[in-house]
Amino acid sequence: MTRIDLNADLGESFGQWTLGDDRALLDVVTSANVACGFHAGDPTVLRQACDWAAERGVAIGAQVGYRDLPGFGRRFIDVAPAELTNDVLYQIGALEAFARNAGTHVRYVKPHGALYNAIVHHEEQAAAVVDAVRRYDASLPVLGLPGSAWLRLAGVAGLTVVQEAFADRAYTPEGTLVSRREAGAVLHDADEIAERCVAIAQTGRVTAVDGSSVAAPAASLCVHGDTAGAVEVARRVRAALDAAGVEVRAFAEETP
Amino acid sequence: MTRIDLNADLGESFGQWTLGDDRALLDVVTSANVACGFHAGDPTVLRQACDWAAERGVAIGAQVGYRDLPGFGRRFIDVAPAELTNDVLYQIGALEAFARNAGTHVRYVKPHGALYNAIVHHEEQAAAVVDAVRRYDASLPVLGLPGSAWLRLAGVAGLTVVQEAFADRAYTPEGTLVSRREAGAVLHDADEIAERCVAIAQTGRVTAVDGSSVAAPAASLCVHGDTAGAVEVARRVRAALDAAGVEVRAFAEETP
Amino acid sequence: MTRIDLNADLGESFGQWTLGDDRALLDVVTSANVACGFHAGDPTVLRQACDWAAERGVAIGAQVGYRDLPGFGRRFIDVAPAELTNDVLYQIGALEAFARNAGTHVRYVKPHGALYNAIVHHEEQAAAVVDAVRRYDASLPVLGLPGSAWLRLAGVAGLTVVQEAFADRAYTPEGTLVSRREAGAVLHDADEIAERCVAIAQTGRVTAVDGSSVAAPAASLCVHGDTAGAVEVARRVRAALDAAGVEVRAFAEETP
Amino acid sequence: MTRIDLNADLGESFGQWTLGDDRALLDVVTSANVACGFHAGDPTVLRQACDWAAERGVAIGAQVGYRDLPGFGRRFIDVAPAELTNDVLYQIGALEAFARNAGTHVRYVKPHGALYNAIVHHEEQAAAVVDAVRRYDASLPVLGLPGSAWLRLAGVAGLTVVQEAFADRAYTPEGTLVSRREAGAVLHDADEIAERCVAIAQTGRVTAVDGSSVAAPAASLCVHGDTAGAVEVARRVRAALDAAGVEVRAFAEETP
Repeated sequence: MTRIDLNADLGESFGQWTLGDDRALLDVVTSANVACGFHAGDPTVLRQACDWAAERGVAIGAQVGYRDLPGFGRRFIDVAPAELTNDVLYQIGALEAFARNAGTHVRYVKPHGALYNAIVHHEEQAAAVVDAVRRYDASLPVLGLPGSAWLRLAGVAGLTVVQEAFADRAYTPEGTLVSRREAGAVLHDADEIAERCVAIAQTGRVTAVDGSSVAAPAASLCVHGDTAGAVEVARRVRAALDAAGVEVRAFAEETP
Repeated sequence: MTRIDLNADLGESFGQWTLGDDRALLDVVTSANVACGFHAGDPTVLRQACDWAAERGVAIGAQVGYRDLPGFGRRFIDVAPAELTNDVLYQIGALEAFARNAGTHVRYVKPHGALYNAIVHHEEQAAAVVDAVRRYDASLPVLGLPGSAWLRLAGVAGLTVVQEAFADRAYTPEGTLVSRREAGAVLHDADEIAERCVAIAQTGRVTAVDGSSVAAPAASLCVHGDTAGAVEVARRVRAALDAAGVEVRAFAEETP
Repeated sequence: MTRIDLNADLGESFGQWTLGDDRALLDVVTSANVACGFHAGDPTVLRQACDWAAERGVAIGAQVGYRDLPGFGRRFIDVAPAELTNDVLYQIGALEAFARNAGTHVRYVKPHGALYNAIVHHEEQAAAVVDAVRRYDASLPVLGLPGSAWLRLAGVAGLTVVQEAFADRAYTPEGTLVSRREAGAVLHDADEIAERCVAIAQTGRVTAVDGSSVAAPAASLCVHGDTAGAVEVARRVRAALDAAGVEVRAFAEETP
Repeated sequence: MTRIDLNADLGESFGQWTLGDDRALLDVVTSANVACGFHAGDPTVLRQACDWAAERGVAIGAQVGYRDLPGFGRRFIDVAPAELTNDVLYQIGALEAFARNAGTHVRYVKPHGALYNAIVHHEEQAAAVVDAVRRYDASLPVLGLPGSAWLRLAGVAGLTVVQEAFADRAYTPEGTLVSRREAGAVLHDADEIAERCVAIAQTGRVTAVDGSSVAAPAASLCVHGDTAGAVEVARRVRAALDAAGVEVRAFAEETP
């Protein structure tokens, strides 16, 4: 049976400021990329997100980012690799306390925002994040973009590598994401997005902007959740996958 | 054989700012209260402190505090208890990542600064910190002031309670600390401090400001380390204890 | 002609996190208490709020608070008075840069949240905030609660004191606010709130919870704006005041 | 008579953490680049630095930086230019409150650390900082590296541009600074540094690493102050300039 994971960012509220509808999203996804307090998420938000995820059997992943609350982790920071390793270790450990309190544990690591983008190409920062995961727990899978330095170096280091595709992004004929600066980079039609997700899950391929079919190898689909509309799109994706007989299931198994 | 632990605060540097001489202090004490990033300590500082502590067999404790870098955790903050519990969980988890990386683990919890002082009397905040420790690992000992709400509630919750005495503080005839606002509250003579430490270790008693002998029950002695002079005092205390045949040893055993 | 000011908190978004609808509120009020970055508000949010306020001729006030983004300034912090003075000076100066850029200037000071509440009674912190205003510009009016230490000490220091009443709060027969912990402390009926505002503006009195009439001396009415519903209430208050022939106008005049 | 300014960074302590000896340095320099709280400096530190500078007639400059306390402003951050403008406005305004309290005002702007380095070449960020100064007060001089985008764009915008040379840095035969990654980039011999400073002040030229003489046009010399040794070097530079009959005087005049 065909099988895929659905992941989304959450735990991104902070103090008085609410972002996204974590509870609604957790009814849809199978993996929750929970912020760890460096770009978003305060301890109370993390606890709540972990409790809700655990109640629903959703896998908790550490969504690690640059230390940048004002920029929401969306600005590249030229952190020294040795410090970045420590920043990531700190974040995973902090989140683990809440996963543990909820009766589970952190089951994978996915970088956020500008860090995610940087380590597609930035070898030193990619290696630094890999080093953090390896030091924390070499059995933790890492989630990311196919072809990124991040996944390549993680593989070299012996980590379990999980590729993801983006439900709502256009692909170039070369199989990379169309830059957000170009028109049509982000899809908005829920039916179209859902249909593409089913195709990715069933065939590992997606239709590029020029109409050609390109490889989109993915064990997980990333959906967004920071707007009410996004939750609705996520629901549609989930329903379409269920209807197509695709098993929607976390890639990271609960281990005893 | 008489036995006592020596504890001190460290890991309190931050970024470009250095505070204390962690390495020197770790050659003297048996328990290191390592800051966890909320009042002091960045991830790189925490990693270094844990590595150095582990190399020397010094027990690592989580020195948890209010979230207040500008105030160094020395200002009371009226945090809601439920949030305080989560703030403490976050800090212990974060430090654990570095203890684990160093091949050991967090072996006890000691609150810092204004939080330490608040939970002598503030029942709700004391209960909140106890709740955090219990949730994190109910086998973790807690370190604090004899007679505090913190230790009382920890005991009620079934946690292992460890009392400490202060090497350089004057005691009232009632056995409490003389307020820092009063003259003579802090002792500076290294020989006198060392002598009092030996007395506490051997007899559980100390001479109060009026010359009377009062109970100072302690399985651990707190020494300070944030000045060069303080490290020297700590060395003198350690030497005096060794010379008196007191075994200086961490109260928190390494467990497999 | 009867005259009153309408003030509301704004500029309280931060980075990726939005709070309130500043633009909508600025079409209703005559004085904007703009956050200054310590409890909320980043520089870009402050710039926007000041630009929008200036375009509409709304007076900009410095809404100064404790340095506590995670707690949104709603938790008492036992800051040393000398440091609090400096924290407030810093905030006023920072906001002034944006007021100035918008062609105007900071025209009054109103403390926020836990600081507002603390300096009703906390003499040292009240004096510290007064000292900051006096040092920054002794001609700046201060806005606050009748009977507070804050307004009393400001008056003693020669500052211009402006009293406010709360549009949506119940009053005790003694003329103080009913504690938020008690049922009925906050009113929700827009018509009732609007009617009370007209009464306060026209008579300086309001009906207390026991039905008696109590003094509510106020040159300004505080309305809330952090929810969509609240903006609607604010509009209703404004319309009722206009309809009753009350001139709604900033208490702090633009000076050349 | 030949004349030059001596500038140094200060106000870089934070809370419990002390960095540098501001008072000693203020007895030597004529311009103080005071941190503004984003990379270092809390409000109490800023107040103290401004008071001490004003007492000695030292010109206060705003040492603006990236918002990055953990990195001390030494890491490039890819801030959007529009936000950077606002970050800089905020910082200048905040510092102005303390300059004003000390009876003076901010008299120039000098970027710090990674921002200083970035805007040598980064046109958009350079333009953003120029825009902030222009908006705050178009009569404020800006201090920086000859040949930088920062000074070039400031000149185009009509700002007064002041060039600086570095007392303790080696120069290439092209007249640029030898990279810190190369051996010999930083000079340590106090006499040599002092001698070079006199040469720069008197001739506008300095000896490069290959022994050739290169142009080092400067109205200000930057000395460092964050170590005890550095203060001693600064004193030596000052003494050498005085002895050589060079008038050491702030480039930014006090205006009424």
